[in-house]
Amino acid sequence: MLILRAAFVLLIAILLLASEAPAVAQDRAKVEFAIALHGGAGIEPEKLNDEQKKQHHESLARALEIGRKVLHAGGTAIDAVEQTILTLEDDPLYNAGRGAVFNAAGQHELDAAVMDGKTGRAGAVAGVRTVRNPISLARLVMTETRHVLLAGDGAEKFADEMRGRPRIERVANSYFSTDQRRREWIEAVEAEKRRQPLPSPKSTVGCVALDKHGNLAAATSTGGLTNKKPGRIGGVPIIGAATYANNATCAISGTGTGEEFIKHSVAFHVSALMAYKGLALDDAVRHVIERVLPSDSGALIAVDRQGRISMHLNTPGMARAATDSTGRVEIKLGR
Amino acid sequence: MLILRAAFVLLIAILLLASEAPAVAQDRAKVEFAIALHGGAGIEPEKLNDEQKKQHHESLARALEIGRKVLHAGGTAIDAVEQTILTLEDDPLYNAGRGAVFNAAGQHELDAAVMDGKTGRAGAVAGVRTVRNPISLARLVMTETRHVLLAGDGAEKFADEMRGRPRIERVANSYFSTDQRRREWIEAVEAEKRRQPLPSPKSTVGCVALDKHGNLAAATSTGGLTNKKPGRIGGVPIIGAATYANNATCAISGTGTGEEFIKHSVAFHVSALMAYKGLALDDAVRHVIERVLPSDSGALIAVDRQGRISMHLNTPGMARAATDSTGRVEIKLGR
Repeated sequence: MLILRAAFVLLIAILLLASEAPAVAQDRAKVEFAIALHGGAGIEPEKLNDEQKKQHHESLARALEIGRKVLHAGGTAIDAVEQTILTLEDDPLYNAGRGAVFNAAGQHELDAAVMDGKTGRAGAVAGVRTVRNPISLARLVMTETRHVLLAGDGAEKFADEMRGRPRIERVANSYFSTDQRRREWIEAVEAEKRRQPLPSPKSTVGCVALDKHGNLAAATSTGGLTNKKPGRIGGVPIIGAATYANNATCAISGTGTGEEFIKHSVAFHVSALMAYKGLALDDAVRHVIERVLPSDSGALIAVDRQGRISMHLNTPGMARAATDSTGRVEIKLGR
Repeated sequence: MLILRAAFVLLIAILLLASEAPAVAQDRAKVEFAIALHGGAGIEPEKLNDEQKKQHHESLARALEIGRKVLHAGGTAIDAVEQTILTLEDDPLYNAGRGAVFNAAGQHELDAAVMDGKTGRAGAVAGVRTVRNPISLARLVMTETRHVLLAGDGAEKFADEMRGRPRIERVANSYFSTDQRRREWIEAVEAEKRRQPLPSPKSTVGCVALDKHGNLAAATSTGGLTNKKPGRIGGVPIIGAATYANNATCAISGTGTGEEFIKHSVAFHVSALMAYKGLALDDAVRHVIERVLPSDSGALIAVDRQGRISMHLNTPGMARAATDSTGRVEIKLGR
C-alpha cells in the first residue's frame, strides 16, 4: 500500500509541475461576452444536400446574430438566451416552437427551460400545447411564481394568467405542424409497428451565454421525441438534466436522448466535475460526452465565466454556432 | 508557484499516508443489508402531543419492518423500497397516496419516482390523479416504457394501459382526501390572501435500501405542496433532484422545498461529492444539507454500498427510521 501511495503522490507531483499554461490567462482578459447555440444533435450532415446545409447555416447564423447583438449592447445573458431561443422556436427548421415533432396522439407538446447563473433561479414548462414561445413562458415561471416547473394543463392555465405579457402569444396546436414533421411521424409509427429502431431525437434548440457583466445563463426548448407518449417529459425542462447555469462554474444546454440526460443529471454533471473534480470546462464536457452518456445519445454546448466555449457530441452531428467579443465565429453541423 | 505546488504535493502525501482506517473495513463486513425511510421534513416535533408522536413512531416502525423483511429474505433493494413506499402511501398520516395535500384547485396531484442503482434505470410519474399507489406506476414507467417521466393525462393514460397489473388500482381523486389536509389547505388559502408566509411542505415519503446482493435503490412519493398550482412539479419525480441511486456511490431520497432540490440537483449532488470530491457518504450528505440547500428547506436520507446510513436535516424535524442486518434500529422525529 505504501509503495502504491508513494507512486500516486509522485504522479500528482509530475502532473502539477507540468501544467503551466500562461496562454489561458491572456485569453481570459480578452473575452467580454460569449454565446453558443445548438439546433439539435439529430442532424446527419452526410445526408443533407448543399441547399439544406446552406439553410441550416443561415438559420444558425441569424439566431446567433440576435443573441450577439443583445450581448454586444450590454444586455444580460438571460435576455440573450431568451431572444436567441425565440428566433429558433419561430424557425420551422427546428423541433421547438413551430416545427415541433408530433407525439403518439398526432399532437404537439412542447418543453422549455431557462436558468439564470447569477441568481440560481430557474423556470421551466412541459407539455405546453398553445403557447407560441414556450421559452418565454418558462421565464415567467421563473420570475412570477414560486415554482420551477409547470406541466400540461397547469402550464396552459398559467399562460392564461400571463395573458397580455410580451411574447405570450397563444396559437392553435396545429400552428406547430409542418409537412416534414408529419412525414417523420408517419415513418416513426410504421417503424414502431415493424419493431424497427426508433428515429433518434431531432433538432432540439439551446443557447448559453456570458454577458459583459460576468453573468451566465442557459436555455433549451424542444418538441421532444417523435411519436412520444403524451405526457412524456424528457430532459429539456428538467433543470440539471439538459439545462443548467451557475456563475461559479458554467452554463450548459444539451440535446439528445432526454431520458439519458435525466438519469445522469448531465448538465449539472458538467458543473459538478468543474466544482468538485477541478476540471476545466472543456475537459468536463468531454468527460460527460465520452464517459457518462452512452454513445450516440447526445451533445452539449457550454460556456464558462472566462468566455471559453465548449461544444462536443457523441452523435453523427450537432447543428451549432458560437461567437464572442473577440470576433471568433464558428458554425458547424458535423463532428 | 513551484513552492506552492510542492507544499500542496506534500500535503496530499501526508493525507494519503495518514488515511488508514481498519475500523471501517470491519463495519463493512458486518452489514449485509440496510434500509432507511422518511416521512417528510415538514414535521415539528415540539408541536406534537405524546399521542401524535406515538402514532408517527408506530407508522414509521410498521413501514420499516415491511422493507426489512424483504431485504432479510434476500429480496432486491428495488422491491424493498417499493413495498415500503406502498405502506407509507396507504397510511393517511403522510402526504403521499392517501393523505396527499390539496392543490389550489382543491384536488390531489401525486408525484413519485424510483431508481435502480444496479442498472441506472429510473421511472417517475407526476400529476397522477386516480392511481392509488403512484410508486408502482413509476416503477412500470421504468420497466415498461422507453421513457423516465410521464406527467398528467399521459400518466393516467399509461395507467389505463397497465390495467390488470398488480398494485395498479384506480381510485376517485377524493380517495386521497383527509380532514386534516383539507384544514391545512383552507389555512394555506387564507395565509396566501393575507400574504402571510406559506406553510412549509409536508410529509413526503421516501426510502433507500441496500440489499444482500450489494445493490442500491431509492424511491420517493408525495402529494407535493399544499395549495400548489395545478401542474406544478416539485423535486420528487425529478431523478437527480429528490431521488437518485447509483451502485457506485449511494441511494438518496429527499424531502423539503422541491424547487430548491431541483435547482441544486440535490440527490445527484450527494453522489457527485462522493464520486468527484472523494467525500464519504455522511460528509457528502452534510455538505449538501449545510452548504448547498438554503436553511430550513430540506432533509435527506441515504445509504451507501457498505450499508452506512446517513440522515440529516436543516428543518425543525424529519420523521425517519432506519435499520440494518446488524439489528441497529433508529426511529426519530426531531433533529
